Amino acid sequence: MIRESTKKRIFEIIQIGKETDFVSRAFDFTIVAAILLNLLIAIAETFETMEVYTSLFRSVEAATVILFTVEYVLRVWTAGYLYPEKSGGRAVVKFVTSFYGIVDLLSFLPFYLPVFFPEGIVAFRMFRIVRILRLFRVNKYYDALNVIGRVLRRKRSQLISSVFIIFVLMTASSLCMYSLEHEAQPEVFQNAFSGFWWAVSTLLTVGYGDIYPITVVGRIFGIGITFLGVGMVAIPTGILSAGFVEEMSEIQTTGKEGETEKNYCPYCGKKLN
Amino acid sequence: MIRESTKKRIFEIIQIGKETDFVSRAFDFTIVAAILLNLLIAIAETFETMEVYTSLFRSVEAATVILFTVEYVLRVWTAGYLYPEKSGGRAVVKFVTSFYGIVDLLSFLPFYLPVFFPEGIVAFRMFRIVRILRLFRVNKYYDALNVIGRVLRRKRSQLISSVFIIFVLMTASSLCMYSLEHEAQPEVFQNAFSGFWWAVSTLLTVGYGDIYPITVVGRIFGIGITFLGVGMVAIPTGILSAGFVEEMSEIQTTGKEGETEKNYCPYCGKKLN
Amino acid sequence: MIRESTKKRIFEIIQIGKETDFVSRAFDFTIVAAILLNLLIAIAETFETMEVYTSLFRSVEAATVILFTVEYVLRVWTAGYLYPEKSGGRAVVKFVTSFYGIVDLLSFLPFYLPVFFPEGIVAFRMFRIVRILRLFRVNKYYDALNVIGRVLRRKRSQLISSVFIIFVLMTASSLCMYSLEHEAQPEVFQNAFSGFWWAVSTLLTVGYGDIYPITVVGRIFGIGITFLGVGMVAIPTGILSAGFVEEMSEIQTTGKEGETEKNYCPYCGKKLN
Amino acid sequence: MIRESTKKRIFEIIQIGKETDFVSRAFDFTIVAAILLNLLIAIAETFETMEVYTSLFRSVEAATVILFTVEYVLRVWTAGYLYPEKSGGRAVVKFVTSFYGIVDLLSFLPFYLPVFFPEGIVAFRMFRIVRILRLFRVNKYYDALNVIGRVLRRKRSQLISSVFIIFVLMTASSLCMYSLEHEAQPEVFQNAFSGFWWAVSTLLTVGYGDIYPITVVGRIFGIGITFLGVGMVAIPTGILSAGFVEEMSEIQTTGKEGETEKNYCPYCGKKLN
Repeated sequence: MIRESTKKRIFEIIQIGKETDFVSRAFDFTIVAAILLNLLIAIAETFETMEVYTSLFRSVEAATVILFTVEYVLRVWTAGYLYPEKSGGRAVVKFVTSFYGIVDLLSFLPFYLPVFFPEGIVAFRMFRIVRILRLFRVNKYYDALNVIGRVLRRKRSQLISSVFIIFVLMTASSLCMYSLEHEAQPEVFQNAFSGFWWAVSTLLTVGYGDIYPITVVGRIFGIGITFLGVGMVAIPTGILSAGFVEEMSEIQTTGKEGETEKNYCPYCGKKLN
Repeated sequence: MIRESTKKRIFEIIQIGKETDFVSRAFDFTIVAAILLNLLIAIAETFETMEVYTSLFRSVEAATVILFTVEYVLRVWTAGYLYPEKSGGRAVVKFVTSFYGIVDLLSFLPFYLPVFFPEGIVAFRMFRIVRILRLFRVNKYYDALNVIGRVLRRKRSQLISSVFIIFVLMTASSLCMYSLEHEAQPEVFQNAFSGFWWAVSTLLTVGYGDIYPITVVGRIFGIGITFLGVGMVAIPTGILSAGFVEEMSEIQTTGKEGETEKNYCPYCGKKLN
Repeated sequence: MIRESTKKRIFEIIQIGKETDFVSRAFDFTIVAAILLNLLIAIAETFETMEVYTSLFRSVEAATVILFTVEYVLRVWTAGYLYPEKSGGRAVVKFVTSFYGIVDLLSFLPFYLPVFFPEGIVAFRMFRIVRILRLFRVNKYYDALNVIGRVLRRKRSQLISSVFIIFVLMTASSLCMYSLEHEAQPEVFQNAFSGFWWAVSTLLTVGYGDIYPITVVGRIFGIGITFLGVGMVAIPTGILSAGFVEEMSEIQTTGKEGETEKNYCPYCGKKLN
Repeated sequence: MIRESTKKRIFEIIQIGKETDFVSRAFDFTIVAAILLNLLIAIAETFETMEVYTSLFRSVEAATVILFTVEYVLRVWTAGYLYPEKSGGRAVVKFVTSFYGIVDLLSFLPFYLPVFFPEGIVAFRMFRIVRILRLFRVNKYYDALNVIGRVLRRKRSQLISSVFIIFVLMTASSLCMYSLEHEAQPEVFQNAFSGFWWAVSTLLTVGYGDIYPITVVGRIFGIGITFLGVGMVAIPTGILSAGFVEEMSEIQTTGKEGETEKNYCPYCGKKLN
């Protein structure tokens, strides 16, 4: 039997290590290197001149997938240390269903699936890109990423609402624009989806130039919608600004004043009655 | 005669229901489903391959329109409960002229109009899209939408002012750009409206690429205007950011401090007189 | 001699009037109507189908120019009431050199100039557009416009600095992009000005699509510059957001607390020692 | 031997001078003029019609390079006054390795290098553009630039994090888009780099129009990514807004309250212990 202390040491190694823990740092580095290597291969494969290295790429990929599999098994096995407040089985379930648990699983599972379902190779292989999300975990700017994540989570309902408004506006304007332009440009505004493609590329100010109104009425409607839409897109920016201001003022107050915040005037530190 | 209690129950059902009121929730769900079905039909009709289903689409539409009509009649009838402080007739008038009252009316009226004015079918049918606005009422993120609405209302005069500035800038620059480019590209900059189309697509940074200056003077002028315009478009964003910061700080003060806010200084905790 | 009271009454009329002063309001309305009529004519003239009305347009324009001239003379004459703290001559100088004084002058002067310098007609006529700026004075949203103006003035040095940074970045990147792309596309990247045109349309995210890098090195450089540039353009937005937040918090404090602000705790109103 | 007082005077001259120090101001002006002259020449050289002046341009450039060299030598020599807390040798090292020390060196070094490595002329000459960065030092808006610099530095980790997220999103979506569009447009989406070029020009909303999805699946994916990406680009704007709000509130407190800030509670005015 493996002793409990060995299991705990393995958990320490696969977690993000302290600067002084050399083995843990080396493990983190290996995983990051494997992810980046995989990404480079995924990119290199799209260049025709790289076709001669296909077998090399396959071997490297297989090696990294084995690494990811072993790591995943170890993480499942040591899940009890990650969630010390849960019993063994529940800790495993919590890890497997957590965001990083799913990302970890998706980063190697697609490699094995073609063995069982050979016909879906291409579609499965695209899941390799999921591995890139793992880079968020091993990251020098972990705190800053957390701040951004916290702001996004806190303002989630407002952000979703504003996206909902934008979406409704886009749907309505794509149907209108289709009605106005279909006869003048039947090849360009083929159906409501063409209209939606126009609405997205206009309201988010991309403007590829592959689709735009040419009739006078269509252009007048387009001008109105563009004004409205650009204003709408400013709403999420405003929400995020307020979110970061809020986050910042809380960090300042909480960070500097700590616990006293609730019992003392946050500014002069005098006791509140 | 229908008893008063039945009327009140009907009002409860057609209003957004509490989670425990199953009948009311089912009614809300039916209305949302009818709106989405209608929207899907409006989209589907724009695809040529869907033409075979036209008669089916017509039937479904007729059914939903009847539903909307019945709902509208019920809302008018129970308007007294929505505005309990008003007398019967005034409550009806208030509902009919309210934003959602008009949206509700426009969501079924265009269907009946062609019966009386057969020649205007296409134009009337476009009003169906208004139905999509009803989705704003039955919405999980009602509170968040309200916050956005409140910020927009509070900053309305500043937002309108900044749009006015942008509009004046666009009108002036469209006339100038027309003067500068008309001779070089008479087909592209045909008149001041072409210039305005350029101004909108440039200052709101869409940039389709169908119209842009080609002379040196026109480009220099365009560069100056683009700089100015992009700055102008940043003004509404700044206004909205300040609006959300303001809203947030008010919610915080009111929400966290609750009643004490009115009785104690939130900073030094001293009792207010 | 015109009596002093008549002069004062004329001053009241030509200034923005109170709601109860009917004559003053009528005068304001006439001026706005004349400006808009002029603008409409300037726009209409660019449409070929309007050429038959040219003589009508000329007459209307002449009438409005006379109106503007009379108004300007009256404003100069009553300048003493606008700046009561200045002596007669100085008040006139102050008005003539003020922003609105210059706008007023430019809104009719270009019409007379061709009489003396007939060859410069087209160039002079473009100054008519200046009249549109007068609309800023007669405006329902005067307060909101003032807030925007105050924020822009207060943040002027920061905004100019950020524009300066963006300008330096654009100049440097236009020279680099020219070096990288000139050989591959000699017709498109003809000289540094073409490069600057690219830089403006890319960094301000317009992207017409008439000019963009096609070499690999050029695209890599373009990607880097675009990242940097889009970040740079976010700086003015951030500055303006902070400006509006600042303005808002001052209005709140000053508006609600008034003079007490300096002597009393702004929150509980207790006297500061 | 040059006397110490002479050395100190030279240091005063080459530093940004006070308004009353005429010699120092004249020196600043000369340097700025030399930088702008150099920049103008770099721009002028890209125009074919300017080729006749090449020898004149070379002479002017040589003169300014000598000026920059002399200035650099003087700055190194007087570095002890710039960092009075450091001993002679260390002050020199600190200046040479400082940001402006490197900019100063790069602004003339590339001119000498071709003498030793004649084959690399073109590449070296591009470094001339570095000189433009020197304009940041001699600048009327020094304070405002400092504010911007401080905000960027303070929010550095959050900004880098958000750029990291955007970069990961772009890499992932470029691989996906390549997979989806390669078969339909093999000439346009040649490899993952083409996909990345699309991702940059779409997510930063430039939209040149040289590359965009044409298949239905590609467009649906593109719409999703564009929504996500435009939201992502709003994150840095939000971060910067919060940074400027923070900076502003600190300046206000420190600026207005001055020394008392450390001794009194800024809110209730009570003395701090």
